[in-house]
Amino acid sequence: MAPVTNGRLLFTGIPEVYAIAGKDNVYDTSETIDLDNVPLNGGMLFKILVLSIDPYLRDKMRGPDSDAGESAYKLGKPIEGFGVGEILRSENSQHPAGSHLVGWFPFQQYWVGNSVQYSYPVAPMKGVPWSAHVGVAGMPGSTGYMGWKEFSKAKAGETVFVSAAAGCVGATVAQLAKAEGLKVIGSAGTDEKVEFLKSIGVDVAFNYKKVDTNEVLKKEGPIDIYWDNVGGPTLDAALANSNRYSRFIECGMLTVYNGGETYTMKNLNMIYRSEITVSGFTIPSLMPKYPEFYVEVPKLISEGKMKFNEDITVGLENAGAAFEANQLGKSTGKSIVLVAE
Amino acid sequence: MAPVTNGRLLFTGIPEVYAIAGKDNVYDTSETIDLDNVPLNGGMLFKILVLSIDPYLRDKMRGPDSDAGESAYKLGKPIEGFGVGEILRSENSQHPAGSHLVGWFPFQQYWVGNSVQYSYPVAPMKGVPWSAHVGVAGMPGSTGYMGWKEFSKAKAGETVFVSAAAGCVGATVAQLAKAEGLKVIGSAGTDEKVEFLKSIGVDVAFNYKKVDTNEVLKKEGPIDIYWDNVGGPTLDAALANSNRYSRFIECGMLTVYNGGETYTMKNLNMIYRSEITVSGFTIPSLMPKYPEFYVEVPKLISEGKMKFNEDITVGLENAGAAFEANQLGKSTGKSIVLVAE
Repeated sequence: MAPVTNGRLLFTGIPEVYAIAGKDNVYDTSETIDLDNVPLNGGMLFKILVLSIDPYLRDKMRGPDSDAGESAYKLGKPIEGFGVGEILRSENSQHPAGSHLVGWFPFQQYWVGNSVQYSYPVAPMKGVPWSAHVGVAGMPGSTGYMGWKEFSKAKAGETVFVSAAAGCVGATVAQLAKAEGLKVIGSAGTDEKVEFLKSIGVDVAFNYKKVDTNEVLKKEGPIDIYWDNVGGPTLDAALANSNRYSRFIECGMLTVYNGGETYTMKNLNMIYRSEITVSGFTIPSLMPKYPEFYVEVPKLISEGKMKFNEDITVGLENAGAAFEANQLGKSTGKSIVLVAE
Repeated sequence: MAPVTNGRLLFTGIPEVYAIAGKDNVYDTSETIDLDNVPLNGGMLFKILVLSIDPYLRDKMRGPDSDAGESAYKLGKPIEGFGVGEILRSENSQHPAGSHLVGWFPFQQYWVGNSVQYSYPVAPMKGVPWSAHVGVAGMPGSTGYMGWKEFSKAKAGETVFVSAAAGCVGATVAQLAKAEGLKVIGSAGTDEKVEFLKSIGVDVAFNYKKVDTNEVLKKEGPIDIYWDNVGGPTLDAALANSNRYSRFIECGMLTVYNGGETYTMKNLNMIYRSEITVSGFTIPSLMPKYPEFYVEVPKLISEGKMKFNEDITVGLENAGAAFEANQLGKSTGKSIVLVAE
């Protein structure tokens, strides 16, 4: 077979606020690949099937002199993220052609590599699309599941507040908390997302653009646990409405990725006044500790006991726009790019 | 004996920034007490010997409508804090006349009460003045000792940064950390305090008014533990220079007591990026867990193995001015009011 185009989404600029498609990332079709003959050098040739768009990708678009360290993207190289790859050819006896890996892939259609970071094999399962393995059964789901198990110290009857609760991480946390007998307060940025929250059992679901978070927490709190995906004024409101010995789980600060460090926190002193424990984490640290996730959650999905919501974009050439929409809070579910069937 | 004046330091106004003597607190001599005949109703008559001035007193000057809760001072009533009282008369068989209690007392010369909050008996010990029991052997010392034991997870060879390190809490932490084999970085606000830090073995002691904290931490860090007494830009610098899995211990935020919530934090996202655990606490929660403190630390003091620095003000009538100086960082050691010999 003749060489085919190997489309790639390149990191081309450090965003001023959020990453703009066609400016900070550009879809490039200049590279071709000979799928039959490209040398594998002991590795594998992957056809990327799905890729995951997540707010934290923005955090890696910092350029060579930033403090983001090794995990920062390199200018001119593809953006990277979680995906599912089908192995077309393999010189690795552990992973034969025809099998699938979930892991950290560049945003390109085909890729040759010796090893895939954070990877594990996945097999087809009824009711579990490939896309779920980069969502509720993948990194975001595991972030919610493992972070919750590790840090929440949840007790039935307690109250948890989850921000960005309609996101994949947030919705996983909300459903786990509900199953453990907690009162769940969840915020989201559109009425459509609020409806989704109600459909998964969130007790108090509200649109933070229409209702003041502080007022909701004053009425429905105080809270014992805050799952933070956003930082900024929402974190400040959670601090103001927290019970003694509250647990705050810092999963991300969406407002900060987008250059939003302009908000002046007023209630940081609640950390000692309410004797709060604030735990920040990134998922690689917890992965080795909770292997049951990779069995338990696909099973729950397959049985219809763990719900999820996807916003699927078809074609890698549209990934930049999907990323932009995601950063602007316009995704209506877990943002997924369907690269190939 | 005829009734005597019972001088009191009253809470008279909610400070705009810091508590101003003669305005936000006023020394009042309108009350008298008949020491021989005042009814005890089963309680004890105390002669207050020493009282402790601490930055956190400012945090309780919030007025009736604040969120400081039960622990807030009542307008028109005396300010309260830790002190040592000699029992002049007693109807309590557990605490006879002539014995001494450390505990939570109103800022007044004499006081009748049935029980003293957070109290325990203390006996005279060679080399340990009464004042030490509200300092290094008392609440501030226990705050440093117990907070360090509970949250630091310190390992020899690690690096700790202590802000306000010349204060009683900070100096206790610095000496414990040094004894456990850590590299200790300590900041203070005067050259005199920096000299004190060097005298207790702090490896890198600096005056934060003359040297940029961020530059010092960049050079001498990254840090594994931050003991925070001040919040604000110092906390922000610590976040920026923290190792993965750092432990931040939030003991107080001096900059916030004084209405300093105007600083916009830039590095809160380091909490998840560096997977930091931030533990806020107030000492009553830890007191039941570390009873050995009350034996071990007086012994260390008596043996000259735990050093401390006192700034003694004679006379309750001068307590307001001492509190003002303390808030302005002008105390040259643990701020103590000697109420009576």
